[in-house]
Amino acid sequence: MKRRAPRPGEFELIARHLAPLARGEKGAFGLLDDAALIAPRAGHAFVVTADAVVEGVHFLRADPPDLVARKALRVNLSDLAAKGARPRCYFMTTSWPDWVDGPWVEAFARGLGVDQAAFGIHLAGGDTTRMPGPLSISITAVGEVRGPAMVRRSGAKVGDEIWVTGSIGDAFLGLKVARDVPGGLSASDRETLLGRYRLPEPRVAAGLGLAGIASAAIDVSDGLVADIAHLARASGLTVEIRAADVPLSAPALRAVGTGLASVRDLLSGGDDYEIAFTAPPGAAARIRALSRRTGVPITCIGSCHKGAPDVVVRAADGRPVAFPRAGFTHF
Amino acid sequence: MKRRAPRPGEFELIARHLAPLARGEKGAFGLLDDAALIAPRAGHAFVVTADAVVEGVHFLRADPPDLVARKALRVNLSDLAAKGARPRCYFMTTSWPDWVDGPWVEAFARGLGVDQAAFGIHLAGGDTTRMPGPLSISITAVGEVRGPAMVRRSGAKVGDEIWVTGSIGDAFLGLKVARDVPGGLSASDRETLLGRYRLPEPRVAAGLGLAGIASAAIDVSDGLVADIAHLARASGLTVEIRAADVPLSAPALRAVGTGLASVRDLLSGGDDYEIAFTAPPGAAARIRALSRRTGVPITCIGSCHKGAPDVVVRAADGRPVAFPRAGFTHF
Repeated sequence: MKRRAPRPGEFELIARHLAPLARGEKGAFGLLDDAALIAPRAGHAFVVTADAVVEGVHFLRADPPDLVARKALRVNLSDLAAKGARPRCYFMTTSWPDWVDGPWVEAFARGLGVDQAAFGIHLAGGDTTRMPGPLSISITAVGEVRGPAMVRRSGAKVGDEIWVTGSIGDAFLGLKVARDVPGGLSASDRETLLGRYRLPEPRVAAGLGLAGIASAAIDVSDGLVADIAHLARASGLTVEIRAADVPLSAPALRAVGTGLASVRDLLSGGDDYEIAFTAPPGAAARIRALSRRTGVPITCIGSCHKGAPDVVVRAADGRPVAFPRAGFTHF
Repeated sequence: MKRRAPRPGEFELIARHLAPLARGEKGAFGLLDDAALIAPRAGHAFVVTADAVVEGVHFLRADPPDLVARKALRVNLSDLAAKGARPRCYFMTTSWPDWVDGPWVEAFARGLGVDQAAFGIHLAGGDTTRMPGPLSISITAVGEVRGPAMVRRSGAKVGDEIWVTGSIGDAFLGLKVARDVPGGLSASDRETLLGRYRLPEPRVAAGLGLAGIASAAIDVSDGLVADIAHLARASGLTVEIRAADVPLSAPALRAVGTGLASVRDLLSGGDDYEIAFTAPPGAAARIRALSRRTGVPITCIGSCHKGAPDVVVRAADGRPVAFPRAGFTHF
């Protein structure tokens, strides 16, 4: 019940491993003040999102600490990407159980450093608490967009097409691999899928290109169908998805072949961290150019129609595929 | 190991109790998008801080949920206050154990609503996770200051005086009361002290008045002596505190009388959430006027000197009082 429960050397741990991560953000004052001082660049506004990852829910205790750190950061970067925002800085609160020691913190900070360099974002503040119970990492990420404009969930128009980056369902399968569910997959496929679960690839470059092209967009983290349902409801129209057009990776196709999962599982599984977005048909050429420029596959998977604000998934023969409405909750 | 573990009605819980808290921040989009869009008012910059509170560390499971919510918000408001910032909005991630039910969330949200109204701040985004283990609430609070100027820890000058708002040590004693440590205090004193522990009073109005007066300031949350040591180190000078001048409340004085705690305990205990700040001697009249205007006692407790960057506490006879260097860790 002490406010904090410091251990010998804890202050030094933070000073040594976390403070250097704040060097790139002048207003972080080296993590040596009560708060950071930040303002958007001229002509820009901030896009802000907050997501936590928790041991036993989003990662396992045995996971490498650098990957845990990068996943915690990347789930937030994925939200910024879906809004067309350029990463700027982040605030982090962590709860460390007793088993978190110096080498763990060092590896954790190293992971953050790798992704800070990769995505151009810097630590700007936070707090750490020693507590019993699962390790948790809460990050509030700040990005910038030009002008007071952000790609919203609510901007889709009747006649727009709907697209998705990357491939869908790999992380769902990766979680099965992490849980050692036998599935008749090759070691190489298992490794690829596990990697997609442990270390999502936020589509930051593609997201930046979408500003000015996409009419609406959403981070696909709770399952493709559930997230597109959010977009459909926010935009007040029906989004029809052609199940056969949803991009699946080669390992995912093989997993469907072995019966490890159905296509329906992949379309409702979580943790994809791809971007689903709508755009008028005339934007197709620019979207393909963006895909070539960024090296990220972007696939048209359906279209927007007048009708009940919801998602409809159609099989190749045109029949609707039923999905349970239970989704995952964001707020 | 599911990304989220929703329960029946969870989505509705959030929509009913948390979404209304975002009505005052236009860029929160009713918590219905992936991220918020915010920019400081013209001529202003953002001051941002992040602090988490955890069950068993900062509060007890049996504590009233509305007070838990308000404490989680207030520890962050206290940081904004110490930086002279006006509260604007906040992002919150919460981890809810199984015992958190509808009535708990309703009372929790009611507490947030009360303090949102009191301090002019609004929920702008966040995330909730069901998890095993202690309840935790992580808040990133955003305030505004005029121009790119914030009251720093590092601005104290030799010759400045050091002041503190309110009274010191009440929360330290309140925690003893919460733990049922017998101390020979009256029921009324016990209640007063418990209240100071459970519900800190962030000095937001006083903090706003300090912009332009204080040369340096720090949120006193880890103990008066430890926090003033931070300020001394950041400013590169010696801060001398006259122990006899540190303001103690009447219940705290009586607790010292009964032997429940020493003055030394009160000066090193945490959870005060007062502001310690430095200012040139010529500012004394303006500081007293600010105290009268806000109704917050503000007391001069010492001064700044050339010397080793540290704090020295002197007894009434001038002898230094020893304090352990172990402090609490922020980053």
